[in-house]
Amino acid sequence: MRIILDAFGGDNAPLEMIKGAALAVKEYGHTVILAGNEATIRKVAQENSIPLDGMEILDCDDVISMHDAPRSLLREHKNSSMAVGMRALAEGQGDAFVSAGSTGAIVVGGTFIVKRIKGVSRAALAAIMPTQQGPAMLIDSGANVDCRPSMLHCFAQMGSIYMTDVIGGGKPARVGLLNVGTEDTKGGDLQLKTFELLKNSNMNFVGNIEARQVPYGDADVIVADGFSGNVLLKTMEGTAEVLMKSIKKAFTANIFTMIGALFVKGQVGGIKKSFSTEEVGGAPLLGVTKPVIKAHGNAKAFAVKNAIRVAAEFAAAGVVEKIEEAVAANAEEGQADGE
Amino acid sequence: MRIILDAFGGDNAPLEMIKGAALAVKEYGHTVILAGNEATIRKVAQENSIPLDGMEILDCDDVISMHDAPRSLLREHKNSSMAVGMRALAEGQGDAFVSAGSTGAIVVGGTFIVKRIKGVSRAALAAIMPTQQGPAMLIDSGANVDCRPSMLHCFAQMGSIYMTDVIGGGKPARVGLLNVGTEDTKGGDLQLKTFELLKNSNMNFVGNIEARQVPYGDADVIVADGFSGNVLLKTMEGTAEVLMKSIKKAFTANIFTMIGALFVKGQVGGIKKSFSTEEVGGAPLLGVTKPVIKAHGNAKAFAVKNAIRVAAEFAAAGVVEKIEEAVAANAEEGQADGE
Repeated sequence: MRIILDAFGGDNAPLEMIKGAALAVKEYGHTVILAGNEATIRKVAQENSIPLDGMEILDCDDVISMHDAPRSLLREHKNSSMAVGMRALAEGQGDAFVSAGSTGAIVVGGTFIVKRIKGVSRAALAAIMPTQQGPAMLIDSGANVDCRPSMLHCFAQMGSIYMTDVIGGGKPARVGLLNVGTEDTKGGDLQLKTFELLKNSNMNFVGNIEARQVPYGDADVIVADGFSGNVLLKTMEGTAEVLMKSIKKAFTANIFTMIGALFVKGQVGGIKKSFSTEEVGGAPLLGVTKPVIKAHGNAKAFAVKNAIRVAAEFAAAGVVEKIEEAVAANAEEGQADGE
Repeated sequence: MRIILDAFGGDNAPLEMIKGAALAVKEYGHTVILAGNEATIRKVAQENSIPLDGMEILDCDDVISMHDAPRSLLREHKNSSMAVGMRALAEGQGDAFVSAGSTGAIVVGGTFIVKRIKGVSRAALAAIMPTQQGPAMLIDSGANVDCRPSMLHCFAQMGSIYMTDVIGGGKPARVGLLNVGTEDTKGGDLQLKTFELLKNSNMNFVGNIEARQVPYGDADVIVADGFSGNVLLKTMEGTAEVLMKSIKKAFTANIFTMIGALFVKGQVGGIKKSFSTEEVGGAPLLGVTKPVIKAHGNAKAFAVKNAIRVAAEFAAAGVVEKIEEAVAANAEEGQADGE
């Protein structure tokens, strides 16, 4: 596989990107194509004794930052590492693309450079979240604040295909609709209409799911509009952060707790790890014509390596082709929002 | 103060309700009026040696359960302990009402028995959540799934008055609007229009707040539509539950972690307590003509006692009267949704 990596996206670029690329080359044998300033990449690699074997470089000068408007990727920053990498992907120079850069810019680039699949009205950023039963997908996680029922139906299809084929090893993913209660009649207009669409689909729809059940892992795909999806994702992150900080503080309260902490530290570290996005490998952008993975903004080498692995699995599973088929079938059924 | 208590609402009724009432009588000197079957109350009290001093009983036979339709409170279950208690409140037999029963039924009873304040289009259930900086209010937390900007403005006013006068000791509460980012231009139509209303109000509006910051306590009042508010509240509960369970499991992993746990148990218990709704005392129903407090469905005596205390503080602070004044001022300003 040939994976294109935005070498200048994210808080720890380019060093951790190059390190992660080297780990992926060594461990998986993929070719990694680094998009970014060649001179800087070679200098950083040399200074840190990172071999560039199995890598290629797409030389460019510019970088798009978190503070730039996402749309500037198409004009002012069309020569940024992200834009250059995405154009190379669209032209077929690689099988998948990974960036830890601006989320908004990735959605813009996916939509207008890589381009949407025909019949998909909006690309969705699908967050992969840790749960008690392994990773689950939240789709949409913030790209689309206002949604229609047909959009949520499409998100469910795309998420179901990804989670079944890339993460679940072929086991049909359980699809749940985020709602304020589990009864069929819960929610507003958007949820009621989406419920009907999902109930009448051929997906493994398990009904409405309350936010409280998400961390327990009661569904593999949680379908939501981008507003409430973002609230769910961010609340989970914030709550886990505040709790883990409180526990760390509790461990250093006095000499007795410090001794106690020595014994339990390993186990609690394991919990932190199981609730970490580092392990999961990144969020897929679904609904575009090639595999795009968004790595966490603060991703380090280990997370970058995992994101490259997941990007390759995304490409190998033929997810894009399966989404194309599913969406084409919607069009034949004349699916509409019933409004 | 005379506080009316639904003695048959919640998972642990009537025993824990009666116990909690006895604690409140003893500790605060309030009179507690128990709504529910008198024979059963007297029998349970006697069997458990709970003195009924300082209590009165409103005898009735029926109970509304979690499985009954909320609306049935007004007809089939109009002689339930909740309906009888709320009618007594409306008639002025008590200063405030507490129930651990069905949330939906409490909202229906508040709206149609206790009745809305003139100018308030919807009553809001305001959850009180633990944060790193003390309790914060989430309004609405699930009663109103579809909201208009003027409703969120009213929720903000009511929440601000409650948090300033009942919880904050007069310090103006920081009001934040739940959104997908902190910039003024974030969110959908509902958030953009509400932002303008709040910015031009006389409240201590601190702007948009992301869900991630809520557990850190960056606002005292978090204003949200009932759908995303419910997602926030339930995600926080679910995440904290799953994390604390994982930690408990980690402590019992082997003999060494069990020894370690002995040292840190007290401190970690403190965290659990600080993230517990038991301590906070219940969720106020705001926008109705008398103080109504919803205690947690699984409330035990200690939580019931706290809910009674909070209900009395709610009444003493004159919150209802202040909301009446604020809402009357809106009408004078000819406030509308600008749609």
